[in-house]
Amino acid sequence: MSNPIEFYFDFSSPYGYLASEKIDELAARFARKVLWRPVLLGVIFRATGGAPLTTLPLKGRYSLHDFSRSARFLGVPYVQPEKFPLPTQQAARAYYWLHDQDCAAARAFAHAVYRAFFRDGRDVSETGLVVELAAQQGADRATLAAALEGAELKERLKAENDAALQKGVFGSPYIVVDGEPFFGADRLPQIERWLATGGF
Amino acid sequence: MSNPIEFYFDFSSPYGYLASEKIDELAARFARKVLWRPVLLGVIFRATGGAPLTTLPLKGRYSLHDFSRSARFLGVPYVQPEKFPLPTQQAARAYYWLHDQDCAAARAFAHAVYRAFFRDGRDVSETGLVVELAAQQGADRATLAAALEGAELKERLKAENDAALQKGVFGSPYIVVDGEPFFGADRLPQIERWLATGGF
Repeated sequence: MSNPIEFYFDFSSPYGYLASEKIDELAARFARKVLWRPVLLGVIFRATGGAPLTTLPLKGRYSLHDFSRSARFLGVPYVQPEKFPLPTQQAARAYYWLHDQDCAAARAFAHAVYRAFFRDGRDVSETGLVVELAAQQGADRATLAAALEGAELKERLKAENDAALQKGVFGSPYIVVDGEPFFGADRLPQIERWLATGGF
Repeated sequence: MSNPIEFYFDFSSPYGYLASEKIDELAARFARKVLWRPVLLGVIFRATGGAPLTTLPLKGRYSLHDFSRSARFLGVPYVQPEKFPLPTQQAARAYYWLHDQDCAAARAFAHAVYRAFFRDGRDVSETGLVVELAAQQGADRATLAAALEGAELKERLKAENDAALQKGVFGSPYIVVDGEPFFGADRLPQIERWLATGGF
């Protein structure tokens, strides 16, 4: 059984969202699974000196334009959220909490969070919405709400984020195929060729 | 007659080099011409707060890996130069000097500079090499060498760089198709679809 493809992303990352709509289908064509790993770019940027794209002079304006165009290019519905970027700790914590119980529910929850944000413009930083989206995948609201307040889940996300940074993750999406790292939704064609040929 | 595609690049930019090997052929398939405009990323970065990719924590190491992989993906010969990045004022000045006399010679010179750097690892910051490469395209060595020392050509490059910054150019390659900006060699597929469909 081959290693899963590792898919690191931040729930507030437009290019992460675009990749999230493509990566499972792409992997499946090569009989591969994908391990989704939400991270917090804000924390990673504190370590690397990075900054959110849209805050950068000139590049920020371009990026806002490119998010929508790249979505159209890939055939993915996209509406630029007015409130953007957002903190995504609660969504990431809920993801890991769900994942420990039910991988498929966690995957469906991750899609739901991304779509709530990048299609419906909803504020996915709100704990209430995070719990609601998890409940739609079968989570018990009260249990999850309590877990989101607890130290254990906070530590869990911190550990996942630290591990990602140790692996070299500096942005979103960051996709690792058999040890080979690819940064950006625009590397999907390279990932496809890598999967098809075993490296090039 | 349609507008030329504008191709902004720095002679020290690996992704600029990759795009330089593809853009004319791509444009020609849609009966379009390309106007090549070398710029100085160092000057642009002073205005935007940008930094050379390879100096960035984590992203720097990744980028060095991605330069070569992206070259293989595109089928372009590439050898990472040991001395990198380099100042490219003299090459850019020589380009504009040549372009004012002979567009085709300037294009061939630009290819020669990029290939000397990214295939042969030569130090294209050296005025002697720049003059030599221009002479191979028919330039008079003494006249060009004198022009490279003069204020007029320095001002010319400064004006071109300022104009690029005014247009929003923040990196290399930065390609404009009928007012639509595309950043990065990885946007070539989007450019192709844009040319084929008139926008999407």
